[in-house]
Amino acid sequence: MPQISNRADKIQESPIRKFIPFAKEAKQKGVQVYHLNIGQPDIETPPEFWQAIQNYSSKVLAYGDSQGEKEYLEVLASYYQRNNLVIEPEHIVATTGGSEAILFSFLLITDPGDNIIVFEPFYTNYNGLATQAGINLIPIETKVEDGFHLPPREVIEKAINSKTRGIIICNPNNPTGTVFTRSEMQMLVDLIRDHKIFIISDEAYREFVFEGEPISIFDFPGVDDLTIMADSISKRFSVCGARIGNLVVKNKKIHSAAIKLGQARLSAPVLEQFGAVAALGLGSNYLPEIISEYKKRRDIVFEGVMNIKGVVCQKPAGAFYAMVKLPISNAENFVKFMLTEFSVDNKTVMVAPGAGFYATPGKGLDECRIAYVLNTDDLIDAMKILKLGIEAFNNQ
Amino acid sequence: MPQISNRADKIQESPIRKFIPFAKEAKQKGVQVYHLNIGQPDIETPPEFWQAIQNYSSKVLAYGDSQGEKEYLEVLASYYQRNNLVIEPEHIVATTGGSEAILFSFLLITDPGDNIIVFEPFYTNYNGLATQAGINLIPIETKVEDGFHLPPREVIEKAINSKTRGIIICNPNNPTGTVFTRSEMQMLVDLIRDHKIFIISDEAYREFVFEGEPISIFDFPGVDDLTIMADSISKRFSVCGARIGNLVVKNKKIHSAAIKLGQARLSAPVLEQFGAVAALGLGSNYLPEIISEYKKRRDIVFEGVMNIKGVVCQKPAGAFYAMVKLPISNAENFVKFMLTEFSVDNKTVMVAPGAGFYATPGKGLDECRIAYVLNTDDLIDAMKILKLGIEAFNNQ
Repeated sequence: MPQISNRADKIQESPIRKFIPFAKEAKQKGVQVYHLNIGQPDIETPPEFWQAIQNYSSKVLAYGDSQGEKEYLEVLASYYQRNNLVIEPEHIVATTGGSEAILFSFLLITDPGDNIIVFEPFYTNYNGLATQAGINLIPIETKVEDGFHLPPREVIEKAINSKTRGIIICNPNNPTGTVFTRSEMQMLVDLIRDHKIFIISDEAYREFVFEGEPISIFDFPGVDDLTIMADSISKRFSVCGARIGNLVVKNKKIHSAAIKLGQARLSAPVLEQFGAVAALGLGSNYLPEIISEYKKRRDIVFEGVMNIKGVVCQKPAGAFYAMVKLPISNAENFVKFMLTEFSVDNKTVMVAPGAGFYATPGKGLDECRIAYVLNTDDLIDAMKILKLGIEAFNNQ
Repeated sequence: MPQISNRADKIQESPIRKFIPFAKEAKQKGVQVYHLNIGQPDIETPPEFWQAIQNYSSKVLAYGDSQGEKEYLEVLASYYQRNNLVIEPEHIVATTGGSEAILFSFLLITDPGDNIIVFEPFYTNYNGLATQAGINLIPIETKVEDGFHLPPREVIEKAINSKTRGIIICNPNNPTGTVFTRSEMQMLVDLIRDHKIFIISDEAYREFVFEGEPISIFDFPGVDDLTIMADSISKRFSVCGARIGNLVVKNKKIHSAAIKLGQARLSAPVLEQFGAVAALGLGSNYLPEIISEYKKRRDIVFEGVMNIKGVVCQKPAGAFYAMVKLPISNAENFVKFMLTEFSVDNKTVMVAPGAGFYATPGKGLDECRIAYVLNTDDLIDAMKILKLGIEAFNNQ
């Protein structure tokens, strides 16, 4: 019997997936589950997005342009320009979600067997995409005690070798909620320039910053040829199911190769690009209001976890996640316990166990990621239940 | 300066792309261009598809299921069952277009450096997808004189070695329009079983058969564990821009790996899966009427080309393409000539040069692919212009 390929065999299963049957079971028993385990916002998709799709008028839903629909590229460039970034339509390639932007980034700068440095904990799907590209993610640890900020330059330099083609960074960060500072980013920029490697900057949460200003990799001059930005409208406009993202690449050779990758799959979904045009054109109040809502939630979650004895967490400054060290030895067992054995007034909480966000075996076992994607009332309730759940788990 | 990756550098550019500026130029000079160069149907997208998208009601456009929306998987299984195929929802994985179905197929059964056998000429995007997967497409020639039917089993067997992981076949065929017969397919099925390799069956044009019955790889018993079907709603319902396709895999290990590939990019576009549900539920008259229209067009094109002295073409039996050997030495020069130097009553014709569909350098230079995606009146006119164009080109 012929075998499945090694790469398909080793591709990581979603670390949440095995808990889904337990969540289903809980619901069947009549228990309400507060889902803080996934980055699926509850914020309503703006009506302008739906309207643009309804207004799309063409008799034939034809292939789109492989680089992206002209209107989408133009309005994206204007959006970046409003954010003080020097980005033109010819620097952009539309992608099928931020996921394809990351996959294309890997394919553009690596060959099978090459290395990309990643700061651990990291967005778990980088694993599956790296496996598809046949490359190794080389993890560099960041620590909850440091608020998951970057280690000194020397630590990163030690991980660079002849197979290293680049560094990937997600800022603001999923899963930690950390916003890397201007000086941290400058350190990375200096480092990639000195070592002649690339940087992939995942900016899906760019505006989700609660203190200070959003920054982008393109705020830093001098490394345009070494820079690939991966972006997405999923979180910004609560349209995760639209599958619309984009690359920004000023290096011309890499940009034209990105278009060729695009040609091989013809086009990104067409209708949603027009939805994106409408969303990107929303008034300047739209995002600040969303961010202010998330800030309230961040405060509730941070206060909630700090109220639990033994928890370690630095106040997250962005995105909509907190990575929390719990006073327990195994977060997977805890997640299962919460779904199968614990409830308060027929309600319980599901978080994401931390280990799935680490590449190094044994790390993150006592951590969990909390996605604050529920309204403030539910979050207040969920944090109370989480506290009681941890006490009950430790008193077993 | 760090370099682009080898794979990104070598990815094939669309063989049509370089002629697009000439087509634009012709239009700017007021010349109407009949586009027979791309497989973009002119058939109207069914209103039921648009309606289903308009009817989608949810406040949040959330991530879909990584395997595919339940409704889409179910209606797809029913559609296959109506076509006498034993396929259940648990055999299916939704993909972002047929393109992703092909890419996933490659990733599932090959590791970098492995070989997949392909019959040449073949769908040109297989090249880009194979490059992404880091594998080699090993071409086996089929000939215009044989109507591009398969060579004897021994010829195919000679191409199999220790790196061969499978064979990919597109039936009905893009770019040739050939429909492989039941006995040809049985030969392939026997061969993959004996050699313990996989078959990837690209069935995007399954119903587009003008004589006889459509067949599927799943019509052949005994090789379910070795079979991956790649499918797409793009051509069937004229929704190329929807980017909805699917895999059918009965091998459980490969099916669950396909879901993990799906998880790494979260989900296929959600809205269009509901459009697909509506399209797949269309009355039993819908497709026969479309096929009957394409049959008329096929007859016009075949009669038209056979009316040109020196043309070699066997009557294509399916899809909506004809691969034609022209009485010229270089089809690329001819395509350029037609766009820049020739017109009849201010009209000209654009076809796709054949070489782009071959992996072997030097092959297909005197061939072109004609996509009959225009109405019958336009096609009659286009075939007249093509004939006059060839005469003019050869009299230069």
